[in-house]
Amino acid sequence: MFQTIEWTLAGTVRLIDQRRLPLEEVYVECRDVAAVADAIQTMQIRGAPAIGVAGAMGLALAAKAIRAGSYDEFFRELSRQGEELSRTRPTAVNLAWGIDRMKRCAEKSKDLPIPAIVQALIREAQAIRDEDIRGNRAMGEHGKGFIADGAAVLTHCNAGALATAGYGTALGVIRAAHAAGTRLSVWVDETRPFLQGARLTAWELHQDDIPVTLIADNMAGHLMQRGRIDLVVVGADRIARNGDVANKIGTYTLAVLAKEHGIPFYVAAPISTLDLSLKSGEEIPIEERSPEEVTTWAGVRTAPVGISAANPVFDVTPARYITAIITDRGVARPPYDASLQELAARA
Amino acid sequence: MFQTIEWTLAGTVRLIDQRRLPLEEVYVECRDVAAVADAIQTMQIRGAPAIGVAGAMGLALAAKAIRAGSYDEFFRELSRQGEELSRTRPTAVNLAWGIDRMKRCAEKSKDLPIPAIVQALIREAQAIRDEDIRGNRAMGEHGKGFIADGAAVLTHCNAGALATAGYGTALGVIRAAHAAGTRLSVWVDETRPFLQGARLTAWELHQDDIPVTLIADNMAGHLMQRGRIDLVVVGADRIARNGDVANKIGTYTLAVLAKEHGIPFYVAAPISTLDLSLKSGEEIPIEERSPEEVTTWAGVRTAPVGISAANPVFDVTPARYITAIITDRGVARPPYDASLQELAARA
Repeated sequence: MFQTIEWTLAGTVRLIDQRRLPLEEVYVECRDVAAVADAIQTMQIRGAPAIGVAGAMGLALAAKAIRAGSYDEFFRELSRQGEELSRTRPTAVNLAWGIDRMKRCAEKSKDLPIPAIVQALIREAQAIRDEDIRGNRAMGEHGKGFIADGAAVLTHCNAGALATAGYGTALGVIRAAHAAGTRLSVWVDETRPFLQGARLTAWELHQDDIPVTLIADNMAGHLMQRGRIDLVVVGADRIARNGDVANKIGTYTLAVLAKEHGIPFYVAAPISTLDLSLKSGEEIPIEERSPEEVTTWAGVRTAPVGISAANPVFDVTPARYITAIITDRGVARPPYDASLQELAARA
Repeated sequence: MFQTIEWTLAGTVRLIDQRRLPLEEVYVECRDVAAVADAIQTMQIRGAPAIGVAGAMGLALAAKAIRAGSYDEFFRELSRQGEELSRTRPTAVNLAWGIDRMKRCAEKSKDLPIPAIVQALIREAQAIRDEDIRGNRAMGEHGKGFIADGAAVLTHCNAGALATAGYGTALGVIRAAHAAGTRLSVWVDETRPFLQGARLTAWELHQDDIPVTLIADNMAGHLMQRGRIDLVVVGADRIARNGDVANKIGTYTLAVLAKEHGIPFYVAAPISTLDLSLKSGEEIPIEERSPEEVTTWAGVRTAPVGISAANPVFDVTPARYITAIITDRGVARPPYDASLQELAARA
């Protein structure tokens, strides 16, 4: 079984290079925070919870390298590097969340000698990883009942083990249902332009012997019209207080289609994806990546030279399209203002 | 200026190889009907009106080669070869329509010597091509008023000069508005899996200096939500009596999105696309092509080996989603049962 990201005995961060899957299973070893920032930026690692863990581990690498005469100096430098790291991807809140949690850990240990603070930070980053996997398993238990026996599930992008420390959010729900003996099949959107569905989700589910059929992103509407899809389950990159969900570009379209066909639409994400500072999804920054991702793939150019392309990486699905949000602490139902805050307040 | 398809002075059919665009502008010369059938089957030529013309020209090549002792024998063989040719692509009705028209032409000339019938058939195939271009220009005139000054138009797949004998259906409407001085910009869906939008539509519009921005198919919903799209115009492969429209996979999804955002949704197609024998779109056969088109991208494999993929090539947009159908004989409005039959009955 592959590991998405882990802290090695040698004190480095090892992650699977998701740009090279599924053709090659290659690992990248990061020895400093710059290497982690680069891995996040270039999408060697992606997926909101996974980059939350990567951010925390990256900051642990940063902490190891800081040469400071005092705690204040140490913390200032740690904060500065955390700030820089969090700018690598703007939409997913988990990255900032992981970095914040590391800073709080440093503050709690401020009376210890700096080498002990660094050790505490390394333990904290590993704890964040382990909690993420446990959280995904809990999410699976909370959500698996939404998948009826014989159901055909549609998912988009990759909200699997590769998007998290392990097990997955949306795929965690599917895995938990499968493990409980529910017969199910999964339609996977290929998810242009980065093809996370074709390359990563199809690969994960195939390894688990869960029946999977790949489709192009523009086929889901037709399948819904023909009654071939029973429910949709996707992950999230950031959830606003009112339940609006930012997720991979194309998610909103699926939500509109699901509503039009009376099909339930579920979001699975840990509470760390919730950003209570935002009133609605309109405030979520949407990352725009290089047009080259749209005009080419795997180095093969398809569009004519000189053509403009847009590449918004996420979209926002308003809360009114979402049947329920499955979290590690339980299921939130509309109205989300109340239900999400209640879950967030739970220990 | 490229020619999509033409009858050469040497008595062959010359067509631009659409699989190699936009990187290479290469022409294929077909000397017999088998070569035309192969060009249609492998999508060297595609687009409902274009394959209507190709079918007619293919049958003219067939006619040239028939060695028959009597008209009846000649016609039996012509019909048999027409039948075979029409099976190459099942969804677009224009192919069968072009072949039928050739058969009717033969019947009208039945009292002539066979070499004269063959000459009549060659003239008829060329007439079908010329009428298609004239029809597209008429469509442009009928439809251009739907594009307001400053409008952002979304189109899907390629309903351009390459999908027809020239000028285009949906792109004909856009071209006519542009030629009339309307300032406009065009969002083009890349249109997986065959990438007609990225490869063909972007190329055509770029050559005409019409501002174009390429997007992945899953981005249109986001752009509509942000108010960046004012109208949608697409082509059609077959239109049922009630106005249901079969067109490239993904069209139905755009129609649902347009309805959700209150954006007008137009279909542009010649009357030859209308199939009055079908009561509704449910009766339109949907071609399924090789899963390889979905598991690979521009020849590069993306999905893991062993993964299933679905590849329905068209979908059906129910008439209730369509604001108007722009034809070569004028604009049909709901209820389409009445308006389409009225246009079909016009000389």
